[in-house]
Amino acid sequence: MSVEKLQITLSEFKKAKPDVDHLEFGTQFTDHMFVMDYSSETGWHDARIVPYQPITLDPACMVFHYGQTVFEGLKAYLTADGEVLLFRPEKNMARLNQSNERLCIPPVNEEFVIYALKRLIQIDREWIPAKEEMSLYIRPFVISTEPYLGVAPSKHFKLIIIMSPVGSYYKSGVNPVKILVENDYVRAVAGGTGTAKTGGNYAASLKAQEVAAAKGYSQVLWLDGIEKNYIEEVGSMNIFFIIDGEAVTPALNGSILEGVTRNSVIQLLKHWDIPVSERRISIKEIFELHEEGKVTEAFGTGTAAVISPVGELNWKDKTIVLNGGKTGEISQKLYTTITGIQKGSLPDVLEWTQKADEGLLVK
Amino acid sequence: MSVEKLQITLSEFKKAKPDVDHLEFGTQFTDHMFVMDYSSETGWHDARIVPYQPITLDPACMVFHYGQTVFEGLKAYLTADGEVLLFRPEKNMARLNQSNERLCIPPVNEEFVIYALKRLIQIDREWIPAKEEMSLYIRPFVISTEPYLGVAPSKHFKLIIIMSPVGSYYKSGVNPVKILVENDYVRAVAGGTGTAKTGGNYAASLKAQEVAAAKGYSQVLWLDGIEKNYIEEVGSMNIFFIIDGEAVTPALNGSILEGVTRNSVIQLLKHWDIPVSERRISIKEIFELHEEGKVTEAFGTGTAAVISPVGELNWKDKTIVLNGGKTGEISQKLYTTITGIQKGSLPDVLEWTQKADEGLLVK
Repeated sequence: MSVEKLQITLSEFKKAKPDVDHLEFGTQFTDHMFVMDYSSETGWHDARIVPYQPITLDPACMVFHYGQTVFEGLKAYLTADGEVLLFRPEKNMARLNQSNERLCIPPVNEEFVIYALKRLIQIDREWIPAKEEMSLYIRPFVISTEPYLGVAPSKHFKLIIIMSPVGSYYKSGVNPVKILVENDYVRAVAGGTGTAKTGGNYAASLKAQEVAAAKGYSQVLWLDGIEKNYIEEVGSMNIFFIIDGEAVTPALNGSILEGVTRNSVIQLLKHWDIPVSERRISIKEIFELHEEGKVTEAFGTGTAAVISPVGELNWKDKTIVLNGGKTGEISQKLYTTITGIQKGSLPDVLEWTQKADEGLLVK
Repeated sequence: MSVEKLQITLSEFKKAKPDVDHLEFGTQFTDHMFVMDYSSETGWHDARIVPYQPITLDPACMVFHYGQTVFEGLKAYLTADGEVLLFRPEKNMARLNQSNERLCIPPVNEEFVIYALKRLIQIDREWIPAKEEMSLYIRPFVISTEPYLGVAPSKHFKLIIIMSPVGSYYKSGVNPVKILVENDYVRAVAGGTGTAKTGGNYAASLKAQEVAAAKGYSQVLWLDGIEKNYIEEVGSMNIFFIIDGEAVTPALNGSILEGVTRNSVIQLLKHWDIPVSERRISIKEIFELHEEGKVTEAFGTGTAAVISPVGELNWKDKTIVLNGGKTGEISQKLYTTITGIQKGSLPDVLEWTQKADEGLLVK
């Protein structure tokens, strides 16, 4: 699909912008959205930027019944110089297509969708909050829209991109959270959909999260679904431990989502000459190594929070406190460096960012 | 919620009824639908029967992102006497609430929803095809409708019931199907959502189904996600084997859906003094027992097909043929008896059916 095929209809009025000092995650949306349709006869077609508006669907549409959906999450940042930066959008688009493959959704043209996204950002540029640690959260998603109750891949889809201005994930600086190790519920298993960013994984996680919250924990730590022994993810983030000066994170095993922030953290640690090991880690091992004083930090990684330090881990009624419940040195340095690169205030040593108007025909 | 709270708006025109000789499953819908809203402030409210119509939702609604959905499937049948029968609707409503519990969706008033369903059937009664083996397929479903991108249970939901006239699942009588035993993909695992009727389970199954179809198989047989050894389900049905005169079906183990037809088959077999064992069965055991000539029949059970005989099973390139690839005696008898009870042409020995106008205020 060529870029000339992108139709643009501008909104006749502009919504009031939210107060940047009271931004809530994912509740307010910009003036426009991107939409593209798929049918098995014509492929992806009718790419368009239109005013942000409701979607009207037949109640028999498959998305309401069989969960054939995928999504992505990334951010655009406004630099002090007034440039708009995107952080590794090509990684998100590649993963969108990996998720599509698992969910029997036809692949999209990654370059074209990035082009369309850049145009969308250009049009709604004034929605990007300028303040420190603030950004525009971008949510591309695909839904199955064929009105048919048979269990089969849909013949019709919609790809939609909506955008929401978001504040800092941390209201008062980076703060370590308390995590409950989950022993009953399972997020994913090899052969399932754990490596895909699809609704069902998140639906499956809600119950455990609810139980953990009732016990005073912020998130759950997911163990493998087979032996309930090996560490997988934390909440909807990847997880890292600093053990004896080495960064250890669970290897991608067929049930763990390959996070873009996970990949960035690994690259950055290696750039700093901190050894990184991607391997199986059991929860037992972590508790034992902690007793020996070897586990000095733990943190989650994800687009929303970037780095989320773990202050406390509870497993079967035993609790360990990490780094005295305070943010560790490496966690803090990763957070400062990645958010600095994203905001353009630190050198982009690993060439992750791209200007959001790069490659646009209309400037 | 009292029955007086059900608002009814009749459609101003009636759609043309489909040709009953060319009914396709789940593509045509009746003139009306039932809708009920939930908000965390007011609970379930605004129960209404309205003309069948599209749903309009904000693109940020959670159903499009995090798969927080559940559904049910049941049927209404027209008897030769012109009565409308429902088959064990209380089982479907109880399971809807079990699914709701797993997916953090607030429970519905089961009796009220059955009442509303009966009113809906009464209004669209002429859509029920009269012919042998035909029925009205009923699809209740719940979707999460809060426009919020945070991963958390939605504060808003919609319960909707739509109905579709369906023909016989078998175009030319009950025919055994070829089944591929799935070794790579996994449907569900204990601690996951396998016991709930939620979209994510069906989304996860599409890929394996696609692979099987390309190899010439109708369905996949799912093994457990842990050892890839124990039999779980077939396609989206439960499975039974007749072994040495005994009916054997996988025990409900936390990852298998508790089918209403499964339960009915167990009750009916016991009523006929055929022993039934709910236990773990490995695929290896089935292949070994088949070699000894002890596996005489196998069949899937579900609302859509009722009984679906298995003619052939392929596991790691070894194939076994069951009952010479023909429908077995017990499979046929179960099919004839259950569909006969459903259609009111055979005595309802286990008191499964209820009249669809039973308990209605308006007759």
